[in-house]
Amino acid sequence: MQEHHRIHPNSIVSPMAKIACGVQIGPFCLIHDNVEIAENTIVEAYCELGHPSGLSDGSPLQIGPNSLIRSHSMFYEGSCFGEGLVTGHHVTVRELTRAGVNLQIGTKSDIQGHCTIGNYVRTHNNVHIGQKSQIGNFVWLFPDVLLTNDPNPPSHTLIGPIVEDFVVVSAKSTLLPGVRVGKHAVIGAHSLVSSDVPEGMFANGSPAKVHCPANVLRMKESPAQRAYPWPPRFDRGYPDHVTSKWKPTPFP
Amino acid sequence: MQEHHRIHPNSIVSPMAKIACGVQIGPFCLIHDNVEIAENTIVEAYCELGHPSGLSDGSPLQIGPNSLIRSHSMFYEGSCFGEGLVTGHHVTVRELTRAGVNLQIGTKSDIQGHCTIGNYVRTHNNVHIGQKSQIGNFVWLFPDVLLTNDPNPPSHTLIGPIVEDFVVVSAKSTLLPGVRVGKHAVIGAHSLVSSDVPEGMFANGSPAKVHCPANVLRMKESPAQRAYPWPPRFDRGYPDHVTSKWKPTPFP
Amino acid sequence: MQEHHRIHPNSIVSPMAKIACGVQIGPFCLIHDNVEIAENTIVEAYCELGHPSGLSDGSPLQIGPNSLIRSHSMFYEGSCFGEGLVTGHHVTVRELTRAGVNLQIGTKSDIQGHCTIGNYVRTHNNVHIGQKSQIGNFVWLFPDVLLTNDPNPPSHTLIGPIVEDFVVVSAKSTLLPGVRVGKHAVIGAHSLVSSDVPEGMFANGSPAKVHCPANVLRMKESPAQRAYPWPPRFDRGYPDHVTSKWKPTPFP
Repeated sequence: MQEHHRIHPNSIVSPMAKIACGVQIGPFCLIHDNVEIAENTIVEAYCELGHPSGLSDGSPLQIGPNSLIRSHSMFYEGSCFGEGLVTGHHVTVRELTRAGVNLQIGTKSDIQGHCTIGNYVRTHNNVHIGQKSQIGNFVWLFPDVLLTNDPNPPSHTLIGPIVEDFVVVSAKSTLLPGVRVGKHAVIGAHSLVSSDVPEGMFANGSPAKVHCPANVLRMKESPAQRAYPWPPRFDRGYPDHVTSKWKPTPFP
Repeated sequence: MQEHHRIHPNSIVSPMAKIACGVQIGPFCLIHDNVEIAENTIVEAYCELGHPSGLSDGSPLQIGPNSLIRSHSMFYEGSCFGEGLVTGHHVTVRELTRAGVNLQIGTKSDIQGHCTIGNYVRTHNNVHIGQKSQIGNFVWLFPDVLLTNDPNPPSHTLIGPIVEDFVVVSAKSTLLPGVRVGKHAVIGAHSLVSSDVPEGMFANGSPAKVHCPANVLRMKESPAQRAYPWPPRFDRGYPDHVTSKWKPTPFP
Repeated sequence: MQEHHRIHPNSIVSPMAKIACGVQIGPFCLIHDNVEIAENTIVEAYCELGHPSGLSDGSPLQIGPNSLIRSHSMFYEGSCFGEGLVTGHHVTVRELTRAGVNLQIGTKSDIQGHCTIGNYVRTHNNVHIGQKSQIGNFVWLFPDVLLTNDPNPPSHTLIGPIVEDFVVVSAKSTLLPGVRVGKHAVIGAHSLVSSDVPEGMFANGSPAKVHCPANVLRMKESPAQRAYPWPPRFDRGYPDHVTSKWKPTPFP
């Protein structure tokens, strides 16, 4: 299958890896056996893809078409990403995570594996997603957000947080194991979320408390405009049906 | 211009890059076209410099003389650094940032671009400086400090914090978008700075509150000595006029 | 001494480095002169070991037998690790740290040097251990934990925290310079530890307050079971005498 693609001659690419047409692989890369990279994906320098894992199930690392993996990133075998994955630099992704289309993973972010991630999710820089986290669609995780998973550290029981569709978790916030953040909820910066946050609510603080419906919040620089739900006012990179056809959910 | 310098033979250096005399480039490096490295700068292993950016303006990455870029770091084209830049390892710097002389960027720190940074600024490890931040001279940002920039996440409006001369931001603190931290102010550890901090004041907590003039604070191990302003008691690596000729500002 | 080991041909290994039998060194590695790697250790891709340091004492980087150093990691000369070291990816370790056996260092964690670390210590991801920290045996440091060391930032006086045996520091917590966390103490998530925590106590908050003996805490999913001390209920990867022969310390 290795045809019509461009692989830098000093990169090491296993002949068993399945590299589709139009794929570009930069210099100093290491592509292991159990890897499938779809059409037109770009892999930048110093990336290692398909690192073997004794904790995986034998399935390949699958990278969807039209993806961009930036430099110094590393992915284990056994995880699967839909079309349009974009990563920053120095990213780490472990085994057995399944993600939808158009996932963006910020620089230095780290997905610990065994996670499910929906479509159009965006993590900013240095986000840590602990094992077994469940993340819906159109979720935003801002810089230094941390999703933890061990309710009794250290223990053998890992229970990831559940982050539903359209949730915004602001910078430097931590979600404790097993908390559920409901659809369209907004978490303020530097919060510690230790209990569930209902759909459409705004919570912040340490521990985080629910303050008000998120749709009460106004744009800082234009208070006449509601800030949430955010899809009517922010559409960069989203498909049409999210933005132009968006109907605000009636909030509690 | 490529003469009298030492480039490791397995590094990839564009013939269009301008590499001055005395520059050393370690192994496994990748230097793109739009790069200017001044005299006697050292670039360690696994660094990528001048990464092309569709968000830049065509200007080169400029690294001043006598700089040291440590391993696994990556810089985009379009940013400019004065003499004596020193980085840690695993650093990321995006496009269109302008920094003065003697900037130190700690290991894993990350400058998102479109920032202005003065002279003699020091960031410790894992500091995240969001786009459009404005940082003065002689500023200290301690480990895990985060400068954010989106007042209505997610939005198109990015407003970086303003950090004035001689400010100290202690470990794990977050500055929210657009806050101004005045000259000589000191922020305690693990704070969330959500409103302006006046010149010379000490603030901490989440949200941070102004507690007292910083010049009331004493050295922990020798309480007879004032801790702030810090320049009279700390001079490592600074030019003479900062320390020996330093006149304390009268505080409010 | 370089015999019966496997070094990838594109790696750069100093002939002065002492590489024991059974050692494997992956591609794109850089091993400096002052390095001793014991039997059966595996070094993955893009690692730099033994980086020269003007701040060290001339002693080598020593990596004990049966260790695993994962990709994109970097160690300076002058630090010493016992048998069974395991690191994540993108790890940085500076000079003059001494660690016992079975240390685990999580992805992106960063040990700043001049630290002492006991046996069976485990740091999760993105843990920052400042210079001169003192860490006992069987300690757990969870993701984004930060150990600071400068009581009057910036200053020349670095006083690391002291973390005693069996301590658990939960995610995103910060220890301020010189604090002592007593044996078997437990620190809750997102805390700022600004004063000493006595042996066996549970503390959390910002600033952290001592709430109760840790042995009052129950397993979240099975409240009939005590959560702490943790050794009777968690034994993965520990020697027999820690777990089967463990006698709970009487707590205050």
